[in-house]
Amino acid sequence: MRLSGVEARARFAAARVARLATVGADGQPLVVPVTFAVEAVRGTLGASHIVTVVDHKPKSTRTGLRRLRDIRNNPLVSLLVDHYDDDWARLWWARADGKARIVEAGDPWHATAVAALTARYPQYQQIPPAGPAIVVAVTRWSGWSYADSPGAA
Amino acid sequence: MRLSGVEARARFAAARVARLATVGADGQPLVVPVTFAVEAVRGTLGASHIVTVVDHKPKSTRTGLRRLRDIRNNPLVSLLVDHYDDDWARLWWARADGKARIVEAGDPWHATAVAALTARYPQYQQIPPAGPAIVVAVTRWSGWSYADSPGAA
Repeated sequence: MRLSGVEARARFAAARVARLATVGADGQPLVVPVTFAVEAVRGTLGASHIVTVVDHKPKSTRTGLRRLRDIRNNPLVSLLVDHYDDDWARLWWARADGKARIVEAGDPWHATAVAALTARYPQYQQIPPAGPAIVVAVTRWSGWSYADSPGAA
Repeated sequence: MRLSGVEARARFAAARVARLATVGADGQPLVVPVTFAVEAVRGTLGASHIVTVVDHKPKSTRTGLRRLRDIRNNPLVSLLVDHYDDDWARLWWARADGKARIVEAGDPWHATAVAALTARYPQYQQIPPAGPAIVVAVTRWSGWSYADSPGAA
């Protein structure tokens, strides 16, 4: 069954990892796993933002740069959260499509993003993420679930 | 640490779900979860293909069609497998970038894809997937792992 936008947003917001898709100038998509937080601006559905921050975990610098380069060229992004289970009656996914912008340290959105990530992930409390932040203004929440609720099957 | 292409392919191939990113004509990326199988053609790394088949599970027809429409317009795709754990020393991901084509029932690749999916997922043995298949010729395997092996931390 298709999920409502409100339900898709709720399931998305509760997840620990999302997959961010961006598009390169050559038309090649890129998918990377990201930690994130959903920030409701003035509590309205239309104004939700997803924030993620490039951090200092040992990872490919080339890939880290590529997602930023992609967004500078084409701000359209898609983010997916999904639940897999060999019992397919428990499958579900939730997706956010939106427009991304990159904010650097010094921008109030950067501080908001770092605070939101640090609040959600205790792992960041020792070393908060310090790279550029990606702020996605969500234009559409969508989702699908085999069953009415994750435990319904 | 960055994973070798061989290691990235091995980890990818063993996973139960991947996320497929395609790009719409308007530049909007789409990410969807997919069941899949990695098929080695003549056993060489360069000739690996990833196959997935649109099936009859109750899902959004619009989304099902959209990934096919995207690929007909732009065959470049990216597929991601990732492992999340709150112990970040256990994080890893593996990605395949490649060129997709759509094959319909009747094409030998369609039968190959359905057989591969049915072999991997017992869930398909009652009702094999019957929609168009997507066959991705992988051009690059890449990946990253915090540790040397998933259990090394």
